[in-house]
Amino acid sequence: MSPSPLGASPDPTPSVSSPQLNEPASEAPADFIHEVEVRYSETDQMGVAHHGSYLVYLEEARTGLMRAHGTPYGEVERSGIGLPVRNISLKYRAPAFYEDRVHVTCWVSALRSASVTFSYEIHRAEEAGPRTHLLSAQVELACVDLSTKRPRVMPEFLHSAFAARLR
Amino acid sequence: MSPSPLGASPDPTPSVSSPQLNEPASEAPADFIHEVEVRYSETDQMGVAHHGSYLVYLEEARTGLMRAHGTPYGEVERSGIGLPVRNISLKYRAPAFYEDRVHVTCWVSALRSASVTFSYEIHRAEEAGPRTHLLSAQVELACVDLSTKRPRVMPEFLHSAFAARLR
Amino acid sequence: MSPSPLGASPDPTPSVSSPQLNEPASEAPADFIHEVEVRYSETDQMGVAHHGSYLVYLEEARTGLMRAHGTPYGEVERSGIGLPVRNISLKYRAPAFYEDRVHVTCWVSALRSASVTFSYEIHRAEEAGPRTHLLSAQVELACVDLSTKRPRVMPEFLHSAFAARLR
Amino acid sequence: MSPSPLGASPDPTPSVSSPQLNEPASEAPADFIHEVEVRYSETDQMGVAHHGSYLVYLEEARTGLMRAHGTPYGEVERSGIGLPVRNISLKYRAPAFYEDRVHVTCWVSALRSASVTFSYEIHRAEEAGPRTHLLSAQVELACVDLSTKRPRVMPEFLHSAFAARLR
Repeated sequence: MSPSPLGASPDPTPSVSSPQLNEPASEAPADFIHEVEVRYSETDQMGVAHHGSYLVYLEEARTGLMRAHGTPYGEVERSGIGLPVRNISLKYRAPAFYEDRVHVTCWVSALRSASVTFSYEIHRAEEAGPRTHLLSAQVELACVDLSTKRPRVMPEFLHSAFAARLR
Repeated sequence: MSPSPLGASPDPTPSVSSPQLNEPASEAPADFIHEVEVRYSETDQMGVAHHGSYLVYLEEARTGLMRAHGTPYGEVERSGIGLPVRNISLKYRAPAFYEDRVHVTCWVSALRSASVTFSYEIHRAEEAGPRTHLLSAQVELACVDLSTKRPRVMPEFLHSAFAARLR
Repeated sequence: MSPSPLGASPDPTPSVSSPQLNEPASEAPADFIHEVEVRYSETDQMGVAHHGSYLVYLEEARTGLMRAHGTPYGEVERSGIGLPVRNISLKYRAPAFYEDRVHVTCWVSALRSASVTFSYEIHRAEEAGPRTHLLSAQVELACVDLSTKRPRVMPEFLHSAFAARLR
Repeated sequence: MSPSPLGASPDPTPSVSSPQLNEPASEAPADFIHEVEVRYSETDQMGVAHHGSYLVYLEEARTGLMRAHGTPYGEVERSGIGLPVRNISLKYRAPAFYEDRVHVTCWVSALRSASVTFSYEIHRAEEAGPRTHLLSAQVELACVDLSTKRPRVMPEFLHSAFAARLR
């Protein structure tokens, strides 16, 4: 079953004010925006992107954010630290279609010593006028030691990278 | 990133009291339990089932429940009605591994005229003693007319099938 | 893009003569048959199982065969041996649909000291009369040492398990 | 099981001579190159991109090629024509890893009235010296009428687009 085809009304107040993709902010942390294109294999027989596809988009966006801050997730794992998912909430507002380009806006909405929460808004790109708001989401990650699988305090380099996107 | 390897402590009060799979209840609606085995392709480099895999298990469980009540989802779609996903919340408690058999317990936790909410508990099967609790989830589906993509009141046959599993 | 909707003609000479699933053969190796049900998430907007879904069915069938012979693939990996895919060929004959139950017949068609080739036929289950033939496939796996990632001779227990299904 | 970790030797004769991505050729058809980055969800517990992930990369590359020639696959389907997969062959030479950027070189290797065959070479991008050759593949697509599901002659606009990449 696919995300809701309901509520495809354009979003009157787009949260993305900066058109530049992934430019570092001078003062306040700018929106980090990751662009994804819907693949054919991600559609389902309802003719839209399957609701599970969005988890992959969110994951790709937050790892893109981490890379932009000098802490690619692959390197984090090689240093012995993992960030497994602990909680997810997803609110589907309108469907995405094959070949749609979508923008995943991503920021840190909560940061604690051993966990971090990302918030997301997904909009359809390339539309004249206000863009359609497709999905809102929050994903909480725990920080764990990969050798013991136990929670641990986040190292300073990770905490700093996330703090730079906290809002 | 994978579901949290934290909290793998056995669940002291398993919510599944009946060992029978999918037996119709005589009085109160029994637990509907769907069994899934973790596929190799569903694992990720953290060595556990990727967190996105669970959405597929949940979808398969609720469509199994619908079929058990004489309303296979394929037939529902052929009758012109769709049940797209509107809201999801997932709480990961412990990881599942390749070749694990897991039990998805599934029931209807809210039922309205044009939407239905399923709740889920996933446990690892085949364990001596209390089984490990892997995940809790809620998924809300809207009822829509597939030709217009607009919300509509649920037909009686669907409402009845879901009511039989409401608790 | 989905597997070909062409050629959905029933197969006049089904290769599966034994209706029992996965019964050990007394003389010649019987067909090993793995049953899979097409998931909603595996469909695409052409309304059929996406062509990539079949790789997962094939993988699940050969690991089922291995388990039936006392060599579950998970244990093989834990012993330090991997069986990565080296070559695949797939011939799509007819599509599978959501909720279809399909039978994956699987056997060993070539066995060498450091590689094994599985052959497959997939048919739609539960049809009166001759079943529709959906796909033929071959998959060649190499035997590697997981610590060095170098090819190695297959251990005797694996070779024996595969030899029992060679035809 | 993952693609073979064998044979990761660099390819001494890279087939991609032009570094420009997707530039139209002046004389002979230039290589069409599609870049993909390996997603975390595409890895498996062997620590590499799962062998099934490549089918998605190939699909994305050929639809990228079609779009570059003014015939996006989504529009082709809306015109009533589908291109389902009929045959696939894949030869895995070396694994791809999480966050690897890979280049999918794609061309038309056979073109008939009602079918087209794409050939592919996948290399790891961003390497000094000769790039590692990861995979070779061929995918044959049939041309069908989506309303009748029967094969049909390819329309002129599609045949021309493919002919421009024939080599």
